[in-house]
Amino acid sequence: MLELLETPALLLDLERLDSNIRRMRNKLAPFNVTLRPHVKTHKSLEVTERLFADGRGPITVSTLREADFFFAAGFTDILYGVGIAPNKFAHAARLIEQGAALKLVLDNLDSARLLADFARANGAVFEVLLEVDCDGHRSGIPPHSPLLVEIARLLQGSGVTVSGVMTHAGNSYDSRSIGEIEAYARQERAAVVDAARLLEEAGFALSIISIGSTPTALFTQDLSGITEVRAGVFAFFDLVMAGLGVCQVQDIAVSVLTTVIGHQPEKGWTIVDAGWMALSRDRGTAKQAVDQGYGIVCDLAGQPIGDLIVTAANQEHGIIVSRSGSLDPASALPVGTQLRILPNHACATSAQHGGYHVLTEGRRLGYWSRIAGW
Amino acid sequence: MLELLETPALLLDLERLDSNIRRMRNKLAPFNVTLRPHVKTHKSLEVTERLFADGRGPITVSTLREADFFFAAGFTDILYGVGIAPNKFAHAARLIEQGAALKLVLDNLDSARLLADFARANGAVFEVLLEVDCDGHRSGIPPHSPLLVEIARLLQGSGVTVSGVMTHAGNSYDSRSIGEIEAYARQERAAVVDAARLLEEAGFALSIISIGSTPTALFTQDLSGITEVRAGVFAFFDLVMAGLGVCQVQDIAVSVLTTVIGHQPEKGWTIVDAGWMALSRDRGTAKQAVDQGYGIVCDLAGQPIGDLIVTAANQEHGIIVSRSGSLDPASALPVGTQLRILPNHACATSAQHGGYHVLTEGRRLGYWSRIAGW
Repeated sequence: MLELLETPALLLDLERLDSNIRRMRNKLAPFNVTLRPHVKTHKSLEVTERLFADGRGPITVSTLREADFFFAAGFTDILYGVGIAPNKFAHAARLIEQGAALKLVLDNLDSARLLADFARANGAVFEVLLEVDCDGHRSGIPPHSPLLVEIARLLQGSGVTVSGVMTHAGNSYDSRSIGEIEAYARQERAAVVDAARLLEEAGFALSIISIGSTPTALFTQDLSGITEVRAGVFAFFDLVMAGLGVCQVQDIAVSVLTTVIGHQPEKGWTIVDAGWMALSRDRGTAKQAVDQGYGIVCDLAGQPIGDLIVTAANQEHGIIVSRSGSLDPASALPVGTQLRILPNHACATSAQHGGYHVLTEGRRLGYWSRIAGW
Repeated sequence: MLELLETPALLLDLERLDSNIRRMRNKLAPFNVTLRPHVKTHKSLEVTERLFADGRGPITVSTLREADFFFAAGFTDILYGVGIAPNKFAHAARLIEQGAALKLVLDNLDSARLLADFARANGAVFEVLLEVDCDGHRSGIPPHSPLLVEIARLLQGSGVTVSGVMTHAGNSYDSRSIGEIEAYARQERAAVVDAARLLEEAGFALSIISIGSTPTALFTQDLSGITEVRAGVFAFFDLVMAGLGVCQVQDIAVSVLTTVIGHQPEKGWTIVDAGWMALSRDRGTAKQAVDQGYGIVCDLAGQPIGDLIVTAANQEHGIIVSRSGSLDPASALPVGTQLRILPNHACATSAQHGGYHVLTEGRRLGYWSRIAGW
């Protein structure tokens, strides 16, 4: 079946997907929290439906385009997880008017003032979460900053309601041990619980205390005070997650199907028709203990072949080598051989494709499309 | 006008595009060669039309999807510049049957044998160029290898005609001086002219002797024996090309419009809503003398602001810093400020977007869509 596909093409292994989803559901089951999966990894309706045993639960999105798409498909409780820019106020207001329980994110007074002004001027209502910085990763307000209460006060009476706080332990992706991930998980929980306490002490009632990253969600031991967990890449996993010890290589549910188109025998190179356009330019494993180049090379059944990796990529060409030089590429991988490349970063690689060829027990089940853009 | 766009969004400056195209046309005018532009950079019908003063000239494509699209739009002379994989034979045959003068590329006996077998079995005809390796960059046959003639002989009588040779000086992208680019240009020309002579001495008449890369095309001094030049990125240019000295920063025709969504004042960070999804993960300037991070930050008019660059990128967040720390981000770039980011690599950044908001004299002219996928 796969032999008939023109390459490169993105494959999604349904058994691995379901098993990864089960793992996260089982992990969170003992805690009294809601899973609000991040759909930015896959941007697919079918994958999102699979994330919920039944119904259309709460989701996190990274673009208003995703919010539009999933709202039209019946998902109403949507957190747009990126600090809102003024040029998106009208778009967000439109979604809310149409019935979406859209939540926006803010982390500064200027944004709050602009949103409040917009709400007043347009008679619009917004629900926002204040973003807390738990690890210095990128945006967010320090958990003990008076700014939290200042923003909440500024918004009072404007039509903008602060319904909660959220944070993301982005630095957990740089952990060098499971112990370090556990420490990030404690820090992530503490930051957002402390921030919530500050606001509650100032008289603001919060319904959402939200954390989220795949590493911390899978290794947390304490979620007291937390109402919901956001995570996305756990559904697919990737080589960065495997390098962290968060999953095994054989858990990775997405791969890029490619074909051998030539060799440079003297150099031990096998040339394939998947370059960075199909694999993405993501080199997330470059800073890990084992640099996987542009990905691990597997056979059609999804099993890694020796120590083969994609070592270099041009737009539509990839170069495969044996790390140790032990494999003779021309005889092991003749022209026409089809291979599957496991990605460094599932979000980035998937984004290079229009959709997924879905496999179950090695057979092609169908095609699940993705959305793109903003 | 730009203030009304939701960000991130890809902008294309028409005056810069036209000026870049003029420069390449003027450079090649004294030589007796055809320009066969590579459409993989922009994948846009309107840009491709702009590349030709009149009519629909010969083009180079990186995917059969591009071949389908441009053939349907009236471009018939199409070189598919990536070694052909067996799973694409039927697709290529279909295009040829429909009237496309499609040229394929081969660099090994196995591919040649498989294509010849397919042609015989299906009564198909193909025109191929043999790929020559001029600099050890990736694929291709060494210019003096007997393999060239061996392949041409193997194909005789099969329905597959060798109509020429082609090469790409990919290593010219790593040059450290214009002198080095000129040396690569000489090497590129010599390789393909030598390979052509070998084939002609063996009795094969060739009509296409094709070279191509933007750096070598713009700095070559001798194109004797060459019939055509392929190049793509020259139409847009990018920071990698500027770092090479091939263009100026102010020649770069594409940029990503983004909006300030917050700050981390203690760190000197400005957070914007363009992350790697909008900018791509390409870090092509990392190996150059000046590493531009994820891009140079410009104002709405397209002028660089001080020494600001995007230093880090998550999926939908970018972090802007002043290299020297001399600019106070919170006061210089308040929330809501719109900025334009010049890309490291125009091909990669453009591929992250569905199309171009085209600007002329700073006003928005319209939207030119791109194609994607395979």
